[in-house]
Amino acid sequence: MTTLHDVGEFGFIERITKHFGTRPDVLVGPGDDSAVVRVGDRILLVTCDLAMEDVHFRRGVVPAEDLGWKAAAAGLSDIAAMGGAPLFLAVSLAAPGATETEELAAFCDGMAKAAAEAGAAVIGGDVTGSSDGVVADVMVIGEAPGGRYVSRNGAQSGDMFAVTGWPGRSAAGLDAQEKGIDAAALIRAHYHPQPRILEGQWLCREDAVHAMIDVSDGVVQDAGHLCERSGLGVAMTSASVAVDPVLADFCAHSDKSLQDYVFTGGEAYELAFAIDRDRFGEVLDAFRSEFKLPVTVLGQFSDEFQGVMIDGARPADIGYEHFA
Amino acid sequence: MTTLHDVGEFGFIERITKHFGTRPDVLVGPGDDSAVVRVGDRILLVTCDLAMEDVHFRRGVVPAEDLGWKAAAAGLSDIAAMGGAPLFLAVSLAAPGATETEELAAFCDGMAKAAAEAGAAVIGGDVTGSSDGVVADVMVIGEAPGGRYVSRNGAQSGDMFAVTGWPGRSAAGLDAQEKGIDAAALIRAHYHPQPRILEGQWLCREDAVHAMIDVSDGVVQDAGHLCERSGLGVAMTSASVAVDPVLADFCAHSDKSLQDYVFTGGEAYELAFAIDRDRFGEVLDAFRSEFKLPVTVLGQFSDEFQGVMIDGARPADIGYEHFA
Repeated sequence: MTTLHDVGEFGFIERITKHFGTRPDVLVGPGDDSAVVRVGDRILLVTCDLAMEDVHFRRGVVPAEDLGWKAAAAGLSDIAAMGGAPLFLAVSLAAPGATETEELAAFCDGMAKAAAEAGAAVIGGDVTGSSDGVVADVMVIGEAPGGRYVSRNGAQSGDMFAVTGWPGRSAAGLDAQEKGIDAAALIRAHYHPQPRILEGQWLCREDAVHAMIDVSDGVVQDAGHLCERSGLGVAMTSASVAVDPVLADFCAHSDKSLQDYVFTGGEAYELAFAIDRDRFGEVLDAFRSEFKLPVTVLGQFSDEFQGVMIDGARPADIGYEHFA
Repeated sequence: MTTLHDVGEFGFIERITKHFGTRPDVLVGPGDDSAVVRVGDRILLVTCDLAMEDVHFRRGVVPAEDLGWKAAAAGLSDIAAMGGAPLFLAVSLAAPGATETEELAAFCDGMAKAAAEAGAAVIGGDVTGSSDGVVADVMVIGEAPGGRYVSRNGAQSGDMFAVTGWPGRSAAGLDAQEKGIDAAALIRAHYHPQPRILEGQWLCREDAVHAMIDVSDGVVQDAGHLCERSGLGVAMTSASVAVDPVLADFCAHSDKSLQDYVFTGGEAYELAFAIDRDRFGEVLDAFRSEFKLPVTVLGQFSDEFQGVMIDGARPADIGYEHFA
């Protein structure tokens, strides 16, 4: 008998997608941040993110509105990772009959706020009973502006590997909250992540950006997905990790290093991308100027090996494993 | 403290949708079988159906492929209820790491088969861990052919209330399977329901059809939704229930009547609709001839009262309640 634990998330996806069939209007099927389909003269992006109580979130620790925001942000970030503009959200929600209405309503309000801030509307979904715990699945339909989108598979040997913003803060925020450490900016990064929607569209318009993904499982693991889909390796150096003062301050009292959090911290919802080695300097400077947001080059893609190397070695910890 | 049990599915939906916001391209928001949106020159239909182990299905009783078929059929039926053509499915799946891969793969194969038979493709989704039990959320995007769709709110006083096919068989099939009674056709109706996709499109093209819904919660409850959205009542008579020989044979050995199953049996995935009283005879004859499928007139809409009456009285049992 083979279990999900044995084959892992991606082994299982590979097993099942063989039978999924296709249609001529499906441009990108399973395996990227979003699926891409053609509808009339438009290109749509479609993604789902399922969150279960006690697997992906715990109730009662932070306001329910933050949990709803985060559930929606995860899906919105998948649209951002393709360079898309979110349009519509459909939400499936399951909860036991004894669940307090106001708590769930606050959860939904959080989702609606994340949607509205991204320019999207919640158009429907499903509400049903659960025997145990709250489940929320957020489906997002977005549009590829001008029909342009960026997928995971376009990285080229020699491209630089760069990440936006503050990877590692979200994971440190979870640790801070669980240990009762006062670190508001980090905890907010975990429960109120900001999907990089305008940033994703901006990067997608740049010809120099060849492939992109959002950092949900951790920089190392998500860099690995870019490598796998592009048939390349990426060499990173721990010295290239930018010193985020907020995160560094927290790490001074933690058993994990800045590099640990940046390389393996999940749910960052930053964008990681491959960018042309001859143009990355000017493009990233323009990005920083446009968004007042850091963007850090962590490594370089190569066709001389496969997968992720850090300081010349395979990383011991690759980040979040769904069926560990 | 107010709970979901107190306010019910529809009270809760009413509470949360106030904050959902909207966009000019959202033509029908929450409250119908599918949401309706405009994308370029096309009209799309969007729906979700969440199924949880031990709430909506039990594993190990029937082949996993049947459970997957049924999970997809529920979403496809919501598209059928608007007269739409299914295009794309996105599926979120959660399961514990110890789940056998082949069982889940068979579940996914069942979903893919239901999609393919409806002309749609599974384009993506999410696969993640669960602490307890399998969860599947199926999102379906369909298209309104020629931009035409039929919603729940168009019934007019005097319209006849009609239902396609064999309502009641699915619920009887569940009882048969749970009691170990050999009733293959009924059990198949429960685990391998046939969404009425071509039938829905055909009815939608008829001007005489004013409002439509699929029978997921039972004929009485779903008729109530047509009434509520149309601001009308519907008077049904138990004598108008057609004698389905397969169901009648089962009822001879059951403590429930044919009428019990037809009026309150859930998960039938038949179509219930309001049809012009001056034209229903010719249209329904043409329908029967086209699809070799029964269609039964069970009552008539009226503006003299609200909600559902059967034989002049309020029905005691209104069917499935999600937060009972």
